[in-house]
Amino acid sequence: MEKLKKYVSVKDEDHFYHQGAVELLIFNFLLILTILTIWLFKNHRFRFLHETGGAMLYGLLMGLIIRYVTKSPDVESGTIYECEKLKSGPSTLLINITNQVYEYQYKREISHHNVNGHQGNAMLQKMTFDPSIFFNILLPPIIFHAGYSLKKRHFFRNLGSILTYAFFGTAISCIVIGLIMYGFVKAMVHIGQLKQWEFHFTDCLFFGSLMSATDPVTVLAIFHELNVDTDLYTLLFGESVLNDAVAIVLTHSISIYSPKENPNAFDAAAFFQSVGNFLGIFAGSFAMGSSYAVVTALISFMHLTKFTKLCEFPMLETGLFFLLSWSAFLSAEATGLTGIVAVLFCGVTQAHYTYNNLSADSKMRTKQLFEFMNFLAENVIFCYMGLALFTFQNHIFNPLFIFGALVAVFVARASNIYPLSFLLNLGRKQKIPRNFQHMMMFSGLRGAIAFALAIRDTDSQPKQMMFTTALLIVFFTVWVFGGGTTPMLTWLQIRVGVDPDEDLKATAVSQSASNLDKNTTKAESAWLFRIWYGFDHKYLKPLLTHTGPPLTSTLPEWCNPVARLLTSPSAYGDQLKEGDTDYIINNDELTENYEPSAHIPVPGSIQATGKEDIQEGDLGLGGYKLQLQHVACQPQKNSLA
Amino acid sequence: MEKLKKYVSVKDEDHFYHQGAVELLIFNFLLILTILTIWLFKNHRFRFLHETGGAMLYGLLMGLIIRYVTKSPDVESGTIYECEKLKSGPSTLLINITNQVYEYQYKREISHHNVNGHQGNAMLQKMTFDPSIFFNILLPPIIFHAGYSLKKRHFFRNLGSILTYAFFGTAISCIVIGLIMYGFVKAMVHIGQLKQWEFHFTDCLFFGSLMSATDPVTVLAIFHELNVDTDLYTLLFGESVLNDAVAIVLTHSISIYSPKENPNAFDAAAFFQSVGNFLGIFAGSFAMGSSYAVVTALISFMHLTKFTKLCEFPMLETGLFFLLSWSAFLSAEATGLTGIVAVLFCGVTQAHYTYNNLSADSKMRTKQLFEFMNFLAENVIFCYMGLALFTFQNHIFNPLFIFGALVAVFVARASNIYPLSFLLNLGRKQKIPRNFQHMMMFSGLRGAIAFALAIRDTDSQPKQMMFTTALLIVFFTVWVFGGGTTPMLTWLQIRVGVDPDEDLKATAVSQSASNLDKNTTKAESAWLFRIWYGFDHKYLKPLLTHTGPPLTSTLPEWCNPVARLLTSPSAYGDQLKEGDTDYIINNDELTENYEPSAHIPVPGSIQATGKEDIQEGDLGLGGYKLQLQHVACQPQKNSLA
Repeated sequence: MEKLKKYVSVKDEDHFYHQGAVELLIFNFLLILTILTIWLFKNHRFRFLHETGGAMLYGLLMGLIIRYVTKSPDVESGTIYECEKLKSGPSTLLINITNQVYEYQYKREISHHNVNGHQGNAMLQKMTFDPSIFFNILLPPIIFHAGYSLKKRHFFRNLGSILTYAFFGTAISCIVIGLIMYGFVKAMVHIGQLKQWEFHFTDCLFFGSLMSATDPVTVLAIFHELNVDTDLYTLLFGESVLNDAVAIVLTHSISIYSPKENPNAFDAAAFFQSVGNFLGIFAGSFAMGSSYAVVTALISFMHLTKFTKLCEFPMLETGLFFLLSWSAFLSAEATGLTGIVAVLFCGVTQAHYTYNNLSADSKMRTKQLFEFMNFLAENVIFCYMGLALFTFQNHIFNPLFIFGALVAVFVARASNIYPLSFLLNLGRKQKIPRNFQHMMMFSGLRGAIAFALAIRDTDSQPKQMMFTTALLIVFFTVWVFGGGTTPMLTWLQIRVGVDPDEDLKATAVSQSASNLDKNTTKAESAWLFRIWYGFDHKYLKPLLTHTGPPLTSTLPEWCNPVARLLTSPSAYGDQLKEGDTDYIINNDELTENYEPSAHIPVPGSIQATGKEDIQEGDLGLGGYKLQLQHVACQPQKNSLA
Repeated sequence: MEKLKKYVSVKDEDHFYHQGAVELLIFNFLLILTILTIWLFKNHRFRFLHETGGAMLYGLLMGLIIRYVTKSPDVESGTIYECEKLKSGPSTLLINITNQVYEYQYKREISHHNVNGHQGNAMLQKMTFDPSIFFNILLPPIIFHAGYSLKKRHFFRNLGSILTYAFFGTAISCIVIGLIMYGFVKAMVHIGQLKQWEFHFTDCLFFGSLMSATDPVTVLAIFHELNVDTDLYTLLFGESVLNDAVAIVLTHSISIYSPKENPNAFDAAAFFQSVGNFLGIFAGSFAMGSSYAVVTALISFMHLTKFTKLCEFPMLETGLFFLLSWSAFLSAEATGLTGIVAVLFCGVTQAHYTYNNLSADSKMRTKQLFEFMNFLAENVIFCYMGLALFTFQNHIFNPLFIFGALVAVFVARASNIYPLSFLLNLGRKQKIPRNFQHMMMFSGLRGAIAFALAIRDTDSQPKQMMFTTALLIVFFTVWVFGGGTTPMLTWLQIRVGVDPDEDLKATAVSQSASNLDKNTTKAESAWLFRIWYGFDHKYLKPLLTHTGPPLTSTLPEWCNPVARLLTSPSAYGDQLKEGDTDYIINNDELTENYEPSAHIPVPGSIQATGKEDIQEGDLGLGGYKLQLQHVACQPQKNSLA
């Protein structure tokens, strides 16, 4: 027999339109409170609580209030309606009740043991929003902003190390956490806390992969404020950005790893399928993201004779930039790739090519827009994390599992950083010092990505236990390690208050003084990236931006007709035209790095190229005034072949 | 008996996460196409199609493709499930199907005759998004931006006329459309196209109120581009902004007007209840919106001795500004008021007070942020309108009704503009000329608000007919009238290419030359707004901003202790401090308008105050350099008592 029971009292039309307003208002209120608190803290130079930590704290308090102060609006609820006639859940149900047809939309599948969670407080239920909101709305701007604001020069200088930490490090971290958790799970089964069949090794690996996404936003904010050593900053920032991408794809690959027989046994075919999946999705997302950015660069670069440039309409330009970047995310999602990874590489490529073509107005608009979206989205996520501790209704707190996870997370971080640093130091001429390694170890905070990955699936009991544990680890790491950053920096005697200008000048001077030292900073990027940089500088940059030598000079002579067609008219002659002084600096930068003969440190040059490190989100292009000065200093370099 | 049938095939988890990506991608694609087209048009100075018209056109084409090219994914669908046990629709249904519990969420109530709409193409259904998205997400930024970018000085100079058009004009328009449509409906009943009981007089009035919201975005864009006479621009812009607010509240009041007996008879009690409702909601929303703005002004103004000002952290400041403005909307919605109205007046108040306290960086950030949001939201809405013609599944095209509506809309516009202009001209010293009246008549385009109000309720057949008709009228007016703006301006011999600088200078010179002329421009605002301006200048501005004389000089002497406490320290002495030069100009502006003795036109002053008209969204504060120059010109004015 079938039975239907009403859950909440009748909804009138008014209620329909105002729904969500109260919940959003609560979020707004929490964010306002966070901002005001941070303002207070900034006044007192109090660095033990970052805005994200504050947002989390307020979320926690609000969750507590909602949970224990508001009452459940009705008692009669949560009755399950039985229907044997259907084989699966339809996406839309039309139900005729007393001659009125109501439309119902499929929300999700829930386990039997979770049904009681739906009997409780309607307010709690409303505050728990759809996990897909995290992935589709809140994360993309954060990730794009990370890619877009990457400090290019320092990033490329340390690219080898960053890639090593991001790929191998994350894989190591995932496996180590998985193994340790499997040990704890075995122990829990042994003492009867868990049934054997509930928790497979793949579940442990899944937990390992989601806990491998680090998010040292708190630490980086403090680094930025205190002007900590730029190399350390870049290593940490680069690692955390790329490692998110790796962890997301890894989690996806593990979740679709399905050995045919015993889920605990190793199935080689399924394993290689997962590895292939990982590589395919990663490469596909990378290609998708960068191709959208290339399209943006081409459009913004178009300069046909009849046309005024797009950059004369900053609003259209900004709109196009925003929409194409978002399309990279959506296209990747629509084709089954990973949108977050696509949007990350889209951001990096946009910063590398498109940014050069934008008008000064659009440069600032896009920068500020994404900065603002990043700020809001980050605080919303951390606020929601605080709320989730009390409003999420299916928490499973298992002390042993939580303890195990804490141990696993730190052991995994250690087995990521120390061995890889040791190996990298074998190859690096400029070693990663011990105190940097300790600081990187210490900065393994968990944040938005780990949370978003964990909340994506909370249907089964193992997944709920993982979610609860992940949440607690985020709290712990953000508050304890985030708060301890400043003392840790002092204790490890890491240079703070480094003037990036001075830093670069010093490096440059020592570079020019001794040939040995010059090779030092280049050592890493030299072997592989020299080839890439040459290609980029000679062909891609001239094709996609106004930068670089005209294609006519770089391509073989028989290509001249094509080359002439593809080269921007501005690349030939008028180098000192206002719009181009921006780009010349990039040439110099490259020349400085890859043409030893041209490497003579001139104060103006150093100041100009060093400027990129001064401001967050400066995108490494330097201030305008400085560039002009710079051009004036070295006119001989700008003469194009 | 009860019966359940599945509607769409099983959804896998992947599908769950990627849902929406394709639909959003389609929108992105349409918007990108629109931007590229507009770029093309701007190059050719082609003014017959505004970006919103272009967005609508592309939406239309895409709707056509989706409708006739994509196939319905399944045939077996839309079966209604019967249930006599329930008395009303619960908000959440838990259904057990083959031992799996599925959660369903209440979406809406649908009429029996609409059920076939749910049997069709799933793609069409997906492209039809929730009407509450318009009201809660797309409209607020548009309306806020309108309020925030109001050209204050010209607006206040014409406030009386604008209020008359907005309040009385909208009421007249609503009643005239209602009456004409009632006539057409009677005729349709007579020839048997409509059943009597379906269409009441209140429905006709409802249609009248929603069709009274004008949206001349196309016209205003052209005005701005061609530098049309500033007074005409201000009248039209001011009217359209306020008239949206009036129409929204009016529509709400009419929809809840429910006479007890015969719905066609006049029920005085219900009528006065509706009028009371209108006034109450309007006043409440106004109060809600402005109080949030006042709070923002107070926070950004706070300048305690121990505290650095908030404006030293532009990101926090922008965040706070954004969140508090949005909270105004949400609070109004949550308390049953009208969020759109609240957010409009919040915008106006923010521009009037808070804007003065913001740092230069935040001024630009907030301006650009809302400009961008406005640009995107507007194009999304117009794009969606185009789509809706083919994707909305319950259109009722009734040629007679559509024809009637077209006639009614123009008759109503005429009976709004001409009689009111005549009456206003009786009071105004500076008459509204005939050609301005014709242009205002011509600019009665319908747009986003009319559409959003119509799509809010499409359950019954009359409402569906109204929706279809409203949509077609939007198409017609945007394309025909929007496209005809430039020829019409020529034909009516309205001044274009007016340099706002020159315009103001000329006015100022003529003002000073003859006393009669000086009174001319002030005539209107003099009687009521002089009082308000005096109050604002003496008490509110000093309290909420750094502007104006210190309260100690404006309040009676016995208030001195309180006044001293409330006055910003900067209001006393250091007028030439960098941060304050911004505000001094406002004093002068006021002085110029309301203290005849101080009224001596100085070139510097004119240039500075005139600057506000040059750029859209400039918010009437003038360029910085000019202000400094201005201060230097008239030091005697800035000496505070």
